[in-house]
Amino acid sequence: MKQEPFRIAIAGLGTVGTGVVQLLRANASIIAARSGRPIEIAALCDRDKNRDRGFVASDYNWVDDVRTLPEMEGLDAIVELIGGADGIAFDLAKATLGKWIALITANKAMLAHHGLELAELAEKKGARIGYEASVGGGIPIIKSLREGLAANNSLSIHGILNGTCNYILTQMQKTGGDFGDILKEAQKAGFAEADPSFDIDGIDTAHKLTILAALAFNTQPDFKSVPTKGIRDVTGTDIKAAESFGYRIKLLAVAQRGEDGKITRSVEPCLVPEGSALGGVEGSNNAIMIEGDFVQKVTTIGRGAGRNATASAVVADIIDMARGDKAMFKPIFGVPSRELAKSDWGDPKERKGQYYLRMKATEAFSGKLDPVANVDGFNCGITGEMKQSELPAGAFSMRVEPL
Amino acid sequence: MKQEPFRIAIAGLGTVGTGVVQLLRANASIIAARSGRPIEIAALCDRDKNRDRGFVASDYNWVDDVRTLPEMEGLDAIVELIGGADGIAFDLAKATLGKWIALITANKAMLAHHGLELAELAEKKGARIGYEASVGGGIPIIKSLREGLAANNSLSIHGILNGTCNYILTQMQKTGGDFGDILKEAQKAGFAEADPSFDIDGIDTAHKLTILAALAFNTQPDFKSVPTKGIRDVTGTDIKAAESFGYRIKLLAVAQRGEDGKITRSVEPCLVPEGSALGGVEGSNNAIMIEGDFVQKVTTIGRGAGRNATASAVVADIIDMARGDKAMFKPIFGVPSRELAKSDWGDPKERKGQYYLRMKATEAFSGKLDPVANVDGFNCGITGEMKQSELPAGAFSMRVEPL
Repeated sequence: MKQEPFRIAIAGLGTVGTGVVQLLRANASIIAARSGRPIEIAALCDRDKNRDRGFVASDYNWVDDVRTLPEMEGLDAIVELIGGADGIAFDLAKATLGKWIALITANKAMLAHHGLELAELAEKKGARIGYEASVGGGIPIIKSLREGLAANNSLSIHGILNGTCNYILTQMQKTGGDFGDILKEAQKAGFAEADPSFDIDGIDTAHKLTILAALAFNTQPDFKSVPTKGIRDVTGTDIKAAESFGYRIKLLAVAQRGEDGKITRSVEPCLVPEGSALGGVEGSNNAIMIEGDFVQKVTTIGRGAGRNATASAVVADIIDMARGDKAMFKPIFGVPSRELAKSDWGDPKERKGQYYLRMKATEAFSGKLDPVANVDGFNCGITGEMKQSELPAGAFSMRVEPL
Repeated sequence: MKQEPFRIAIAGLGTVGTGVVQLLRANASIIAARSGRPIEIAALCDRDKNRDRGFVASDYNWVDDVRTLPEMEGLDAIVELIGGADGIAFDLAKATLGKWIALITANKAMLAHHGLELAELAEKKGARIGYEASVGGGIPIIKSLREGLAANNSLSIHGILNGTCNYILTQMQKTGGDFGDILKEAQKAGFAEADPSFDIDGIDTAHKLTILAALAFNTQPDFKSVPTKGIRDVTGTDIKAAESFGYRIKLLAVAQRGEDGKITRSVEPCLVPEGSALGGVEGSNNAIMIEGDFVQKVTTIGRGAGRNATASAVVADIIDMARGDKAMFKPIFGVPSRELAKSDWGDPKERKGQYYLRMKATEAFSGKLDPVANVDGFNCGITGEMKQSELPAGAFSMRVEPL
């Protein structure tokens, strides 16, 4: 066993960073046994040293200026938990990799925007990026995709990747309340941010889908082109109508290879069968279904956010690297960045499928819906197989995902 | 990229072995890109060269005598898909590790019976054992437990690990048929073996639980002491009664740490809530729920058997090793074998919980059941919290797992 400790610095002591320190303390002996060496917190870095975090800051080497971290002697990894696509986090990531130091991060925004640049830098320098915590919280989905299912050509990904949205949609279904009221309650209960746009407009989900699609299909991460729609326009009427047809409404991240070979990605509220694995995912849980050509469907469900679950994922990356992961061929997005395809993405509007429509009872298209139900004065129903581009212009529509 | 191929021999060209060859052929280029080098099938070994397997045997270096495989020059790994706890498979495993060659195996019986001896030998020799395919078919549960959730102290495992049993129980529920009839149909449909005892008596599930418990709790694999009960005594009456109470019956593998710190393992049919992730697992699917102290519950559902799904798991191990996994500290059961605890297992009869009982309507204990229902002339119901050892002696009982 290598007895020299694996030395890390943690930058950003918010919720997740605090959880990582607490986890490394609480489970130190089992983590050392599984890593083959102890993990040493060589530095903690945050602007606010004095906040109550459940441990004594002065027990650690506290660094105020994050820019000095990559210059520290003898660091094996820097754990970036500052967040934000650009600015301090991105500067730290580049400086870390530039110094041959491994980077561990939960920063989906940064990876979605700059993943290719960081992967190229890491591979050029022979440094590593661990980002298990960036998608799915505690669910080890990055490892499952990159390693556990590596023998497969991916066919599709379907994910419930944002706990806030799933909590709101679940509450709307359980209480019959409307979006605005439930959002306010969720904000009071701490399940939604004061400015909830990032979550409820689907941006966070699109960041995560960008990462998963890159890994699953070995394409360049490309956030800007993800067609994204959030859950603001989903009404209590839709929830009731969907339920009466045997469906639940979920904000789904979807990436799938079409018959033309193109990969289509989308983030939008969809109807999923209530008896399906994803249909049963309630509250702030996350779930990801991967379909591979040999393994078929593998679905994983777990806590998609929160201090402890996310810390579990960050520390899994630390353990991997402490075990000697550096010596493995393990390119950031599954294959070397120069082999990542610059994808010619498919257009979700051209995907065939069934659609849920909510329309005024008088509209002519209503007659073509089956099943159909009159809910709250609207005609709500499900179309036959068609393209989104063929739907009537005025109606509110959501895709039906058979799963 | 290392360009020299990773050279493997495959011993045992039955269903899974054939699937591994087909997968390595079908997805050769993506597997090479993700491995950093091509995978070369240096030898195939089976007594029957002439069976139709969808590929031409003479395209390969065919070896008739499995005992000569470990003597071959330049092998990186031997893939053992012969099966059986002892005999040829075990001899091959020992000879392989003894020659510093990595072993990849789907052989749960061998690992359950001889896992400790093989782990000790592998670690002494610095060889590796990959056994992703031994539990859960295509579900990457070994990797998830050993790596993805490595930061956690495990609290419990609940698994549906045998597709045959789950298929039979699902069919009993859907058709209202009784065990014997459904078993016969399952045998005709190829979902159960001619001699089904290994599956329906819970032995296969107990093998898999032995492996999962060793990994999750870092204990010595210890098959002989797993209290095991199969599904032969589950009747249509039980299925109906459970359904009326809102439950499904599943053959569950359970390992959990009790308040006294002891780990209790059991294989037995249990009642699980129909709305839970495991309650919704139907047909020949498998599912495993891991509960860790930080990550909380993570549930994965997928194809637990079958040629392609199992091949996906075998090839995941091949890719890992080709990537340079040898250089990592990665002890077989999560920590070095000398650190695996010789567990003082808890007694499942002393676990508190609720129990389902089926008894003659006249028995005195019937009055203590709530809920209770008269089904087919029996009083069926659920007890309050008690120990199994406190149940009335004559009644048929099953544990209720709240999940």
